[in-house]
Amino acid sequence: MTPSAPSVIEGIGDDCAILRMGNRVMLASCDLSIENIHWRRSHATPEEIGWKAAASALSDIAAMGGVPLFALVSIACPPEVEVSFMEGLYDGLLDAMAQSGATIVGGDTTKSREGVVIDLTVLGESEGRVLMRKGAKPGDALVVTGFLGMASAGLDALESGARAPELAKAHYHPTPRFPEGQWLSERQEVHAMIDISDGLAQDAGHIAEASRIGVSIDSTRIPVEPRLAAYCAANGKNPLVFMISGGEDYELAFAADPASVEDLLREFRAQFHTSITIVGEFTQSDLGIRVDGAPATIKGFDHFAKKNAS
Amino acid sequence: MTPSAPSVIEGIGDDCAILRMGNRVMLASCDLSIENIHWRRSHATPEEIGWKAAASALSDIAAMGGVPLFALVSIACPPEVEVSFMEGLYDGLLDAMAQSGATIVGGDTTKSREGVVIDLTVLGESEGRVLMRKGAKPGDALVVTGFLGMASAGLDALESGARAPELAKAHYHPTPRFPEGQWLSERQEVHAMIDISDGLAQDAGHIAEASRIGVSIDSTRIPVEPRLAAYCAANGKNPLVFMISGGEDYELAFAADPASVEDLLREFRAQFHTSITIVGEFTQSDLGIRVDGAPATIKGFDHFAKKNAS
Repeated sequence: MTPSAPSVIEGIGDDCAILRMGNRVMLASCDLSIENIHWRRSHATPEEIGWKAAASALSDIAAMGGVPLFALVSIACPPEVEVSFMEGLYDGLLDAMAQSGATIVGGDTTKSREGVVIDLTVLGESEGRVLMRKGAKPGDALVVTGFLGMASAGLDALESGARAPELAKAHYHPTPRFPEGQWLSERQEVHAMIDISDGLAQDAGHIAEASRIGVSIDSTRIPVEPRLAAYCAANGKNPLVFMISGGEDYELAFAADPASVEDLLREFRAQFHTSITIVGEFTQSDLGIRVDGAPATIKGFDHFAKKNAS
Repeated sequence: MTPSAPSVIEGIGDDCAILRMGNRVMLASCDLSIENIHWRRSHATPEEIGWKAAASALSDIAAMGGVPLFALVSIACPPEVEVSFMEGLYDGLLDAMAQSGATIVGGDTTKSREGVVIDLTVLGESEGRVLMRKGAKPGDALVVTGFLGMASAGLDALESGARAPELAKAHYHPTPRFPEGQWLSERQEVHAMIDISDGLAQDAGHIAEASRIGVSIDSTRIPVEPRLAAYCAANGKNPLVFMISGGEDYELAFAADPASVEDLLREFRAQFHTSITIVGEFTQSDLGIRVDGAPATIKGFDHFAKKNAS
């Protein structure tokens, strides 16, 4: 085997597989998006459904500080679905891919028995350091970009019929944090990173688990987006549920050296004009995963585990 | 952009996308395999279903003379499916991947509403020349490896309840032609290649179409596998239907220089002890696609086109 022979640097278990391909480090990930499981036709335009499927797949590349390059699109579709719906969905996919700089290079289309099934494979590369889930250390600050809970509150509004167009848009039009992820991957004081697809508690837990340490979230430090606060006040909901357990915001969560994290945050804000906040800290492993001092469990976004647990 | 910057050499339209990744040429393809569309649980063991899904995806790499490296496995599964079924399916997938030398590096699992949905993305590389669909020339011989029609006759037997275990095995346990494809890609007298997933007429038509020429198939030259002949005789079927229109054998079809094709076939047989046969020739484009002199049409394996045509 030559030094540049293709090899697996990191396989199953992180946001992307990390592969050595000649003199390049490649990132590869795939993401299923299924009608009436992940989205509903009545909730969004076809373009939004396509955008969301692409953005959620692309976010796995952002979560490692990578650059998206190529995508393969597999779509299964029942015969009765209108061509105009599929065209709109594809337009949304293309739009999200184009905005991220990725090119659709292949795919497969076939019939399905029920509902539209989308599987997106995204291939990217790292031009420098790849940020994995593992690497966080006890004492590291837990930091999140942006605001949390908007997307899951949007889904709550859509499911309950409440009118909250901006929250619905957060659910169906998330934007992967590519420039932010790439910038963070260049900073040595950032030790581990993930995108928040499953909710802050679970995803911070994924970093802790991969790093074989614990994590403690302080809910009082998580900023509440004003429209989330207004929605919760008007509908008798607790914003913390969305902010801690709600996924699909595709914000970044990372572990950073506490000695330099304040400088990092100041520079990040100057660069991106985006909210970024310390919301907890990583701890010794025997403390497990805690929210406001109370033990939490990490189940991950595993539908089978959820089924078995219920 | 540096000379080694990632770029698309060939995108949508061939068996794989051909991508430049640093100093390597990468092949990427994906393939959906859906319960009650592509396979039935009553027809095969879970291991066979997994094997077939993997083999059909891997065959796209073989069709270009590539070496399979990595795979991503997306599986959606209804809650009622037994764990033992999914374990068997995964064992079959792993077995086919291992035999081809590919490593599963990632994937996604989720619930489905109906039936098991498998999408396999395979990544490979070319260590030399990549054989595409385009490149055939008028006068080139049309050559096929192995025997055709076994897999589709196997499906016919399974659907009709006829007992034909060896044909059923051909349907559920095809073997991608990796060493043969790689060997052929090193021969300059081979101009274009495809794997036969849609049937000889359609796939030879795909080469002709991509090469902007015609193709003429001589059905009398296609060898009839004895077990296919026996099945057809016993069940009142015409073997030519399976041999020309039946897909999923995953044999290779290619265009070769007529001046040296007999030498090529002799060397191939000595190397692989496998049947290989000239079954037609490529022609000027204005002759279109013909079987035994009669015009044929190329529809490709496009379920939507089939639906619109019916």
